[in-house]
Amino acid sequence: MRQKDIYHNSFEASYREPFGAAPKGSPVNLRIDINDRYRVSHVILHYILDRTDDEKTKEMDLFSQEHQQTSYEVTLTMPQTPQLIWYFFEIILDDRTVYYGREKSDESGEGHMYDHIPPSWQITVYDPDYETPSWWKNATMYHIFPDRFYAAGELELDKAPETSLVHAHWENDPVYIRNERGEVIRWDFFGGNLQGITEKLDYIGSLGVTVIYLNPIFEAESNHRYDTGDYHKVDPLLGTKEDLENLIEKAADRGIEIMLDGVFSHTGSNSIYFNREGKYDSLGAYQSKNSEYYSWYTFHRYPDEYDAWWGVGTLPTINKENEDYQNFLVHDEDSVIKTWQKSGMKHWRLDVVDELTDDLVSQIYRQLKQEDESSVLLGEVWEDASNKTAYGKRRDYFLGGVLDSVMNYPLRRIMLEFMKGEMDARTVHRRLMTLGEHYPKQYFYAVMNMLSSHDVERIKTMLHGYLPEEYPSEEAESLIIRQLKSLSLWLYAIPGVPSLYYGDEAGVIGGADPDNRKPYPWGRENKELLDWYRKIGRWRREHVALRTGHWKSFALDEDVFGFERWTENGLDHFGEEASDERLLYLFNRNHGKKREVKLPTQKGKWQSLENKKRIFHSKNKVLTVELEPCEAMLLRLMK
Amino acid sequence: MRQKDIYHNSFEASYREPFGAAPKGSPVNLRIDINDRYRVSHVILHYILDRTDDEKTKEMDLFSQEHQQTSYEVTLTMPQTPQLIWYFFEIILDDRTVYYGREKSDESGEGHMYDHIPPSWQITVYDPDYETPSWWKNATMYHIFPDRFYAAGELELDKAPETSLVHAHWENDPVYIRNERGEVIRWDFFGGNLQGITEKLDYIGSLGVTVIYLNPIFEAESNHRYDTGDYHKVDPLLGTKEDLENLIEKAADRGIEIMLDGVFSHTGSNSIYFNREGKYDSLGAYQSKNSEYYSWYTFHRYPDEYDAWWGVGTLPTINKENEDYQNFLVHDEDSVIKTWQKSGMKHWRLDVVDELTDDLVSQIYRQLKQEDESSVLLGEVWEDASNKTAYGKRRDYFLGGVLDSVMNYPLRRIMLEFMKGEMDARTVHRRLMTLGEHYPKQYFYAVMNMLSSHDVERIKTMLHGYLPEEYPSEEAESLIIRQLKSLSLWLYAIPGVPSLYYGDEAGVIGGADPDNRKPYPWGRENKELLDWYRKIGRWRREHVALRTGHWKSFALDEDVFGFERWTENGLDHFGEEASDERLLYLFNRNHGKKREVKLPTQKGKWQSLENKKRIFHSKNKVLTVELEPCEAMLLRLMK
Repeated sequence: MRQKDIYHNSFEASYREPFGAAPKGSPVNLRIDINDRYRVSHVILHYILDRTDDEKTKEMDLFSQEHQQTSYEVTLTMPQTPQLIWYFFEIILDDRTVYYGREKSDESGEGHMYDHIPPSWQITVYDPDYETPSWWKNATMYHIFPDRFYAAGELELDKAPETSLVHAHWENDPVYIRNERGEVIRWDFFGGNLQGITEKLDYIGSLGVTVIYLNPIFEAESNHRYDTGDYHKVDPLLGTKEDLENLIEKAADRGIEIMLDGVFSHTGSNSIYFNREGKYDSLGAYQSKNSEYYSWYTFHRYPDEYDAWWGVGTLPTINKENEDYQNFLVHDEDSVIKTWQKSGMKHWRLDVVDELTDDLVSQIYRQLKQEDESSVLLGEVWEDASNKTAYGKRRDYFLGGVLDSVMNYPLRRIMLEFMKGEMDARTVHRRLMTLGEHYPKQYFYAVMNMLSSHDVERIKTMLHGYLPEEYPSEEAESLIIRQLKSLSLWLYAIPGVPSLYYGDEAGVIGGADPDNRKPYPWGRENKELLDWYRKIGRWRREHVALRTGHWKSFALDEDVFGFERWTENGLDHFGEEASDERLLYLFNRNHGKKREVKLPTQKGKWQSLENKKRIFHSKNKVLTVELEPCEAMLLRLMK
Repeated sequence: MRQKDIYHNSFEASYREPFGAAPKGSPVNLRIDINDRYRVSHVILHYILDRTDDEKTKEMDLFSQEHQQTSYEVTLTMPQTPQLIWYFFEIILDDRTVYYGREKSDESGEGHMYDHIPPSWQITVYDPDYETPSWWKNATMYHIFPDRFYAAGELELDKAPETSLVHAHWENDPVYIRNERGEVIRWDFFGGNLQGITEKLDYIGSLGVTVIYLNPIFEAESNHRYDTGDYHKVDPLLGTKEDLENLIEKAADRGIEIMLDGVFSHTGSNSIYFNREGKYDSLGAYQSKNSEYYSWYTFHRYPDEYDAWWGVGTLPTINKENEDYQNFLVHDEDSVIKTWQKSGMKHWRLDVVDELTDDLVSQIYRQLKQEDESSVLLGEVWEDASNKTAYGKRRDYFLGGVLDSVMNYPLRRIMLEFMKGEMDARTVHRRLMTLGEHYPKQYFYAVMNMLSSHDVERIKTMLHGYLPEEYPSEEAESLIIRQLKSLSLWLYAIPGVPSLYYGDEAGVIGGADPDNRKPYPWGRENKELLDWYRKIGRWRREHVALRTGHWKSFALDEDVFGFERWTENGLDHFGEEASDERLLYLFNRNHGKKREVKLPTQKGKWQSLENKKRIFHSKNKVLTVELEPCEAMLLRLMK
């Protein structure tokens, strides 16, 4: 029995069917309940075709009447052109008109009444012909900042950029070297290299990893190498083309793919193409208007005033609509993408993908898939990727044919706000359901989920910051380890590709850049954490339900969040064959209090994956499990 | 015929005899002329014994009367205790009393009348038993900042301090790495080492060098190594004790001595002795009051508030009156001084010598001389070293038994102000005569003369700054080269040890620290300058008159300064045998105008040392020489 006079809930099949995103041309059934004390004249569905901003209406039909509630319904046929559809309800009463719409843009589900045009629900209409590669939805990622992972062999100083400084000791902390105006004047290097990654493949494999994502590796001046100097050359300090090919090959031997970071929105000022300092033999755009690269860039006053990423003069922006550049990047026989395809490189992460045009991204996508359908194209996106707008344009990332995946920063924010106590479990549930609704399942199961990256504080350091001031410092470390376990387990059990940022598994801490880019602490790892990450890596590999099984989240109270993963009838969520299993993730985020939690599924015998001997209390025949403060548990239904 | 009514000039033998400093117990004759229109009752000499501040008077006797001038004289016997004597004149007339005193503290010579107690002339009373080593007065110095001269062999990064950064390329520029509060947080190294200096001894020898002064070489955290960590250990990045001994030995084979930088006023906070970071196994003063080093330091609130050099917390000050420290440094069997004496190290430069007590300096002096009389002790002094006062005490550097030499920054200032146009040639003459008067000749011939050092901007960069704004930039470089030649020739021809700061001979530029500490540009030297420095190095070696010959300076007009150097009667200035020769340095500092200069000595046939064929004009039978703008010339009287 609903408390509310008017009710629609996009999460529930009785109000919207099917759930979530919809294939183009498919029917979507929508219903709304209205209390009979309202004297309804008409119920109108308003829906907007996002691509044309075309607003249409449909009168809803009476569907049923019971318990003083009248239900109205309409079936919409999704357009043939993939896009977003926005909808809300108008209820014309005898004496007035009211509206019913959504609450917040990041919280779908139920709505409420408005006396004016309300916010809309979203239906993502996608092209079902595009699927994300199956291996990718099953993947576990390891994310490496190449200068800081492992340095094999003797450091060859002469290979480092001209003005660079090299840390004499691997155990040192990175540092920014700035002048009095705060500008970076030198870059510090540790000398991690590709051969180092190759030598550590067994280690990486021991974490259950199946794909390594590398921050940029092409020749550049900085240690992060987002200031590309030459797209066709591996940075000499990192190694050679052969070292890259060797890494790809040796990784493949272990079932591990490699993904490169493609920085195609800007080049370095110190590059073959711009050549501001004249370091390269080429005729750069900065040097002459006759440069073959001149048209790539946008000069306001030649040569010193030009468009640059965030105004940083060392990163001149490329005009992505320039055909010469598109050919250079994608289409020429020796284009960047084709060149590295020849070396076996299939997967790319696109830096600041919102700065590229979707058209250019699609060109890259097609070139990748044409060569190998299993190629993956991932974009750096910080928001809900299904409805992102950039430069006044809606981005088509998830409609098909643009990207396979994005970095799922929204999930990270949800997890952290929950952990910090700023968001309760019910909101977590609702936010995750919203993502699940907005994202076509091909993408919801393909996003890159992470707790740390090279662009944010490391998770362990964030958790330190979340502890209440009065928390006893001697207990902090063990509590944080427990939090880390709970959050990483969440990441490894939820749909999407869990990404482990190198060193998180070893207990590395680090605040904002450059502290989040410390060298991996070989020989000084936190063994307990390392063992844990190996264990959850193995769990994910062993349990298909954790990867491509169905998913359903829930909140048991404000502190306890959970979700179920399962396969049934011999099939996973994508209709692929899979033996039946059922797993349950439960997490008590409370810092101070234990919880006795009633299992949402009362049938069968459940056991913790971690400690198979753990006994569950049964009071009044109710299945319960005890969760310590900040503890999470992954349970499995025994056959 | 004097224009002035009352006259005394300390530079002239007719008013003060002998010139300059005087041995203890020796007579000094002083005279003053007074015009006969004054009705003189008494003429009183006031003189003050500096050590006791004891003011005495002596009535002056009438000496002669001619040309309406009456001359009075008195002979003072210098005290037996070396010290300064200050004097001025009181003239009691029938109707009033007038005074005659000196003009300025840095300009001795003639004085003027005062109606009150005037400034005094100085007589430096020294102990003639102390002589500065003869080799030293004949020396030519090369000053090396060890991290930046030459790196022999492969750079061993593991030998660098824990938190250090190493430049990947020798051609890089040094940099300070500071946090937002401006504090240095890391040190940059290039990896120059002792073996590198040994390998370059032939190069150094080719410059005519006979002594190498090294900035600190003991284990430390910083690249300058003034923050000593262990006085008994060569910094591992620089090499080993054996490398130092090898350098001393190989240098000696070439007639080159080595001088070390002794930093005995403070230690590093990261040291065996203080051990703030606990890096050393020792029990440091910071760690425990039971530390054997605790009494070396002065704590205001233990352990975080302590005396430190200029308040820099990484450089805790040592209490120099602490006997334990004195023993550690000088007297113990394994004292710092004795330890390195065993390795053949005889010569020391004392950093911030004014922060040490004269007593401690004398202890070091005695220990050095006891082992080897030819040992040299040089102090870092920035002012006139004969009358320097520090911490309320007059310093006895030049009285005998304390130092052999000081860094002659006053000469550098005079040369630069003259070059810049801020001081005319007459003032240059007077200032240099003042130094010559104040400094006993054993010291005037032993000071370290330099144009650049690790603590000041490099000379070439300073000269760039002196050019008038309107000066044509395309001509600047050649003018500056000419200025460099003129100034370096001055340095190599004047009494004292000329010191060449590594790289100045190669045309290295550099402003304030760290730019003045760039790596030596091997393979990119300015050949013209390098040839020049080799030439003047050879001239100084070949001409004893330039080293220990007599010296007399003069100003020909405001722009032209010069001095004569000569030996006569088969003896040099110190009565040592030397074949007779006579040289003349002439310098036209004017940027824009050539000068035809009349030689101050009209007898004989003069020839330029540089270009023996150069013809001198003789107009009206007057010997003249033509000097280009900024040109200096060293002439030699032909037999």
